[in-house]
Amino acid sequence: MSNVFSKSRIEAFSDGIFAIIVTLLVLEIKVPHIGDHNSQQELTEALTGLLPKFISWIISFFTVAVIWVNHHKLFKQFRSPDSGLFWWNAVLLLWTSFIPFPTAVLGDYPGNFVSIVLYGMVMALMAASFTGMRYYVLRKGNLLEDDVDVKLFRAGTKASLYFGPLFYLSGILLGLISPFLSFAVFIIIPVYFIFSETRG
Amino acid sequence: MSNVFSKSRIEAFSDGIFAIIVTLLVLEIKVPHIGDHNSQQELTEALTGLLPKFISWIISFFTVAVIWVNHHKLFKQFRSPDSGLFWWNAVLLLWTSFIPFPTAVLGDYPGNFVSIVLYGMVMALMAASFTGMRYYVLRKGNLLEDDVDVKLFRAGTKASLYFGPLFYLSGILLGLISPFLSFAVFIIIPVYFIFSETRG
Amino acid sequence: MSNVFSKSRIEAFSDGIFAIIVTLLVLEIKVPHIGDHNSQQELTEALTGLLPKFISWIISFFTVAVIWVNHHKLFKQFRSPDSGLFWWNAVLLLWTSFIPFPTAVLGDYPGNFVSIVLYGMVMALMAASFTGMRYYVLRKGNLLEDDVDVKLFRAGTKASLYFGPLFYLSGILLGLISPFLSFAVFIIIPVYFIFSETRG
Amino acid sequence: MSNVFSKSRIEAFSDGIFAIIVTLLVLEIKVPHIGDHNSQQELTEALTGLLPKFISWIISFFTVAVIWVNHHKLFKQFRSPDSGLFWWNAVLLLWTSFIPFPTAVLGDYPGNFVSIVLYGMVMALMAASFTGMRYYVLRKGNLLEDDVDVKLFRAGTKASLYFGPLFYLSGILLGLISPFLSFAVFIIIPVYFIFSETRG
Repeated sequence: MSNVFSKSRIEAFSDGIFAIIVTLLVLEIKVPHIGDHNSQQELTEALTGLLPKFISWIISFFTVAVIWVNHHKLFKQFRSPDSGLFWWNAVLLLWTSFIPFPTAVLGDYPGNFVSIVLYGMVMALMAASFTGMRYYVLRKGNLLEDDVDVKLFRAGTKASLYFGPLFYLSGILLGLISPFLSFAVFIIIPVYFIFSETRG
Repeated sequence: MSNVFSKSRIEAFSDGIFAIIVTLLVLEIKVPHIGDHNSQQELTEALTGLLPKFISWIISFFTVAVIWVNHHKLFKQFRSPDSGLFWWNAVLLLWTSFIPFPTAVLGDYPGNFVSIVLYGMVMALMAASFTGMRYYVLRKGNLLEDDVDVKLFRAGTKASLYFGPLFYLSGILLGLISPFLSFAVFIIIPVYFIFSETRG
Repeated sequence: MSNVFSKSRIEAFSDGIFAIIVTLLVLEIKVPHIGDHNSQQELTEALTGLLPKFISWIISFFTVAVIWVNHHKLFKQFRSPDSGLFWWNAVLLLWTSFIPFPTAVLGDYPGNFVSIVLYGMVMALMAASFTGMRYYVLRKGNLLEDDVDVKLFRAGTKASLYFGPLFYLSGILLGLISPFLSFAVFIIIPVYFIFSETRG
Repeated sequence: MSNVFSKSRIEAFSDGIFAIIVTLLVLEIKVPHIGDHNSQQELTEALTGLLPKFISWIISFFTVAVIWVNHHKLFKQFRSPDSGLFWWNAVLLLWTSFIPFPTAVLGDYPGNFVSIVLYGMVMALMAASFTGMRYYVLRKGNLLEDDVDVKLFRAGTKASLYFGPLFYLSGILLGLISPFLSFAVFIIIPVYFIFSETRG
């Protein structure tokens, strides 16, 4: 029995996990309980109070969508994955499926530096899984499709280190000055990615 | 690396999200607690009290099924999607995966105009994502399959603006007269769609 | 644009829903809370108390697996589905995705005739969706694959009426004598199906 | 109608269940509630208290990933499955989808021998489903692909008995001496599997 994995089953397994994470995130937003069921003012105030949770949900949704796009683009460049690639992918899915937890902690304690450290660390570990997967593929040599420019792939791997884990770690450090600086960095990453993607 | 996305992976990702939303909706209906476990009258009354939640679940289920049909018919007309189309699809999935929340709010506070505004707005934004996606494809020009009649697609795009977001917004306005008028409009859309589909 | 649906996307959507229902069922079984964390007797008793929920979970799991097998065998006989078939499938998925609720009610109030009526009714409606789907396909005429024996399909359709909804309704009626008779009927259906399948 | 199942639909159904189990496991980790929202010490302590749940989540995640790899490798060797194989697969999915429950019980009562028995039993039953499925395929004879070495498959089947259910049962017995010995055995199985896989 060869050591070759079916790329389509790994993609289907990963897509299932991505779809579930994105959908589970909305379960964190609970229907508010109000005293007077017909009071428009009470319900408006209760829903407005959920705005921070709603915004953190939208950010997480697009963050996972960006991870999906990255995953999609990377796997398009791979031949049939081997065991090592499967396990790098499993590590990536582990940290990605953990994202709802630090997101919820950040939503409940936005001003607490510990939430910022937790969120930034999990995102850095997720991004580092992408970088690690790329280095593994480069080292193995025979896992890339023939039409992939190895020089470009190597450059992209280096870039994924700076714009991935190191960017998130710098986001944590900026939180020592103000949590808003951390939020800005955490939001900039997916937003920058989406705009640079849809340009051109 | 070209900017072309795999249509089948986007469809699989979207199908996963649709399947989860439809299934999560039923989790809102909780088993009632009654005093005398063997009292048929108490259990009947408790279950009857869940009827509004049950009806709102059926409406949401068919609403998401209609969205799935729309999505399916639209994507059948597309070539390999580009980044822009992927992100329009992500926006559509964002609002679709949010539907369980306004549905639950409407189920708890059916007589409150604020719930009607929330539900109508989310549905209008979901419908507007379809319209936006269609206009994006028309503007790009090269994303439609060869056998698609562009004139018909353009007409369908205009129609999707009127029978989509504008219809839902008018449903909100009718709620100023009576919530029942809003419910009627919100129900008519999927029902009309299903019957016009299964005719012929 | 033709009225033809992609069979593989309908199957993927249905498979997603079946997989989620089967997995959600286990969430009904909660970790028990005990006073003395190290008492083996307390934990054994608490876990034994969950046995009815555990058994109802296994029954539901295999019931949904039987529905999956039926669905699989039926769709193998279909050409590309039309709108009508899609909506019959949606009705089937509606009742199937509702199964966790009557199962949980039956698990909490096993001796209450109302739970038996609820469970039996939902299962009868689910089974009736299969029968309705089959009659729809027979009426349409052009939806069956060429190698399907229409006479056999017609006989199977009639049989699906007796061994489906009518069997479940008779299970409800037997509950007027004793709930155990209803349980027996509800269990016999999947068990009989599995054994008749794996024979041969 | 032949008795042949579509391998790809069984794989898709199984992949969906695996993806959901892996993702549901993280829902067991709840956001902690603390008194002073801005106290870094309180939040750090609360998060540290979740460490056992976090570790048990990582172990379960990789355990399910190992099951996925096993499932993938086994099904690659099968022709179109028959009914018997489908039901063996259903039994495997039953025990696999139950894993979140004994994992949560073990996370709450790690020092209680009853949790160790429960966890070990469920894992042994899951592993025994793999062994049973392999013996079934050997007995049937015509379910293996032509390029599969039947002698090797037979040897792997015997090995799956020793390194599967019997290993987990011995892990339970070692718990009579100390729970740490059981944990060691439960962790060694996935870890050994991952390393033996990624070697070579």
